Amino acid sequence: MNMQIGKQSLQFAEAPYIVSSASIAGQKEGDGPLGACFDVVGEDDKFGQNTWEEAESTLQKEAFSMAIGKAGIKKEDVRYLFSGDLLGQNIATSFGLMDYQVPLFGLYGACSTCGEALSLGAMSVAAGYADCVVSMTSSHFASAEKQFRFPLEYANQRPLSATWTVTGSAAFVLGKRRSKARITGVTTGKIVDYGIKDSMNMGAAMAPAAADTICRSLTDFGRKPEDYDKIVTGDLGSIGQEILFDLTKGQGYDISSVHEDCGMLIYDAKKQGTGAGGSGCGCSAITLAGHFLKQIETGRLKRILFVPTGALLSTVSFNEGKTVPGIAHGVIIEHVA
Amino acid sequence: MNMQIGKQSLQFAEAPYIVSSASIAGQKEGDGPLGACFDVVGEDDKFGQNTWEEAESTLQKEAFSMAIGKAGIKKEDVRYLFSGDLLGQNIATSFGLMDYQVPLFGLYGACSTCGEALSLGAMSVAAGYADCVVSMTSSHFASAEKQFRFPLEYANQRPLSATWTVTGSAAFVLGKRRSKARITGVTTGKIVDYGIKDSMNMGAAMAPAAADTICRSLTDFGRKPEDYDKIVTGDLGSIGQEILFDLTKGQGYDISSVHEDCGMLIYDAKKQGTGAGGSGCGCSAITLAGHFLKQIETGRLKRILFVPTGALLSTVSFNEGKTVPGIAHGVIIEHVA
Repeated sequence: MNMQIGKQSLQFAEAPYIVSSASIAGQKEGDGPLGACFDVVGEDDKFGQNTWEEAESTLQKEAFSMAIGKAGIKKEDVRYLFSGDLLGQNIATSFGLMDYQVPLFGLYGACSTCGEALSLGAMSVAAGYADCVVSMTSSHFASAEKQFRFPLEYANQRPLSATWTVTGSAAFVLGKRRSKARITGVTTGKIVDYGIKDSMNMGAAMAPAAADTICRSLTDFGRKPEDYDKIVTGDLGSIGQEILFDLTKGQGYDISSVHEDCGMLIYDAKKQGTGAGGSGCGCSAITLAGHFLKQIETGRLKRILFVPTGALLSTVSFNEGKTVPGIAHGVIIEHVA
Repeated sequence: MNMQIGKQSLQFAEAPYIVSSASIAGQKEGDGPLGACFDVVGEDDKFGQNTWEEAESTLQKEAFSMAIGKAGIKKEDVRYLFSGDLLGQNIATSFGLMDYQVPLFGLYGACSTCGEALSLGAMSVAAGYADCVVSMTSSHFASAEKQFRFPLEYANQRPLSATWTVTGSAAFVLGKRRSKARITGVTTGKIVDYGIKDSMNMGAAMAPAAADTICRSLTDFGRKPEDYDKIVTGDLGSIGQEILFDLTKGQGYDISSVHEDCGMLIYDAKKQGTGAGGSGCGCSAITLAGHFLKQIETGRLKRILFVPTGALLSTVSFNEGKTVPGIAHGVIIEHVA
């Protein structure tokens, strides 16, 4: 039986397998420390399209196609798609995935979307609602800048606490077919608001949500940080990481020896001028697909807690003086011997 | 056992109950033909707030509080929230629901969100992932006009095919506790694009998606239109309805004798000057909660197929010359004797 564990977690009896994954990255991500891990690195960040939004849709198309190709299945074999992105009204997802004619659950969790999509996808497979689903997400530096900050042409300056939106998309085929990695549990996050109002300091805005979900997951499952080879957050960056360590220590958990942050791994911040690190839905997604998942598959990592983090704001909420609350969704991924 | 039925549907073995619901409506909706059905009709469409977005968040707050109040439960008893809205980055949902501290799955399905939220909520309860969840959504005329068209102050003219965004929010408590209505199955929609490019004719853009989901659901479950007392679409309006009838007839299903559209029911279009009808996530949500659900509970309606319809566009996609694709999610609701 699938089980409710504690207040916010689920443990799957027949844990769904991650059958395959695919990661598509932009040029800057290709130039970064993880560059060699990604399946495809685009030479042109417009990916042959006319607009940035179409480019982002193309990322989703390529990630979906490659993931099902690696799994050796056809789009007709995919019962549900769980996907979302950062753009208003999820247009990267809608225009990226509509040609595949797969029933779609559109999601919005800001940069936590990869965690939300993997959670709902795994829940659907574990419940017997589907033999095979695809969970995915994307972000694009230029479409996000246009959406949230300024068009690139303005060349505005950025504070050091600002993060750099990752151009990338990853897709994960989840199913009953045996593979080397499976999702054994999830911890679903709630919105946490510490009153941060600086949209250029997302790490500080999201760290409390990450701390909340991580501590809740450890408590729900009765585990210690050392029970995980890695606890991986999405895009807190260097400033958010410090806050995360303080907050989790305050709750009695020292995660500093096992913590990694996708936003800190994906760029060489000093060389590449990416401020506090990478961000965006694509950041944690391609880092999981390209980097961590491979280590789980080989058994180098036995068990990780993957916690993508999202900052819940829009230009409207920001301009109306609202805070930037955060949310984080935890997914437990384990090696299958 | 919960079962996969056909290509896009699920049938629940232990069908989740709709334990309670609540509907909060704006003044214009209160003045319409269904005005007496809603739990609360606001006298001031700002609902005591400073901005339209805060007003919409307040709608969600009130709907959530009232729904759990009617169910006699506390917020701590709600394991998951499934919610979304029309605003960029779902801000009505985020700022409306963050104080409740309930794990949240943020959704985006445009005006089909009520169907998506009810589907995922029912799937979670039926799978044993939760004893109690809340599925909800909202829209607000003024925040939607600002988001998608013009600020109200411009007083721009509207073509007759345009719909009027409903100010309203409804919340549904789904759970294992016996009630007079239950969700026995769902049919999850795919994106359908007929190439419509007119954002002022949403009915035409969404009708193909509604037809696709309705015909698919009938086929999956092996039912005829007459097996339902009503087949209820979300917000096609009068122009969309004609297209829907044509398309479903083309697939061998004449639904004209059982069809109703929430967008056509909620306003007196001629008297109230609402063009082709009501629209927005709130339209189908409050019409279900206030109008249809009560008839299911009394047994006047034994079984309905509820199909909220969404138009997947943003101002960016529209201005870049993209089409307006549609999506529709079907939810089967039955009377419990």
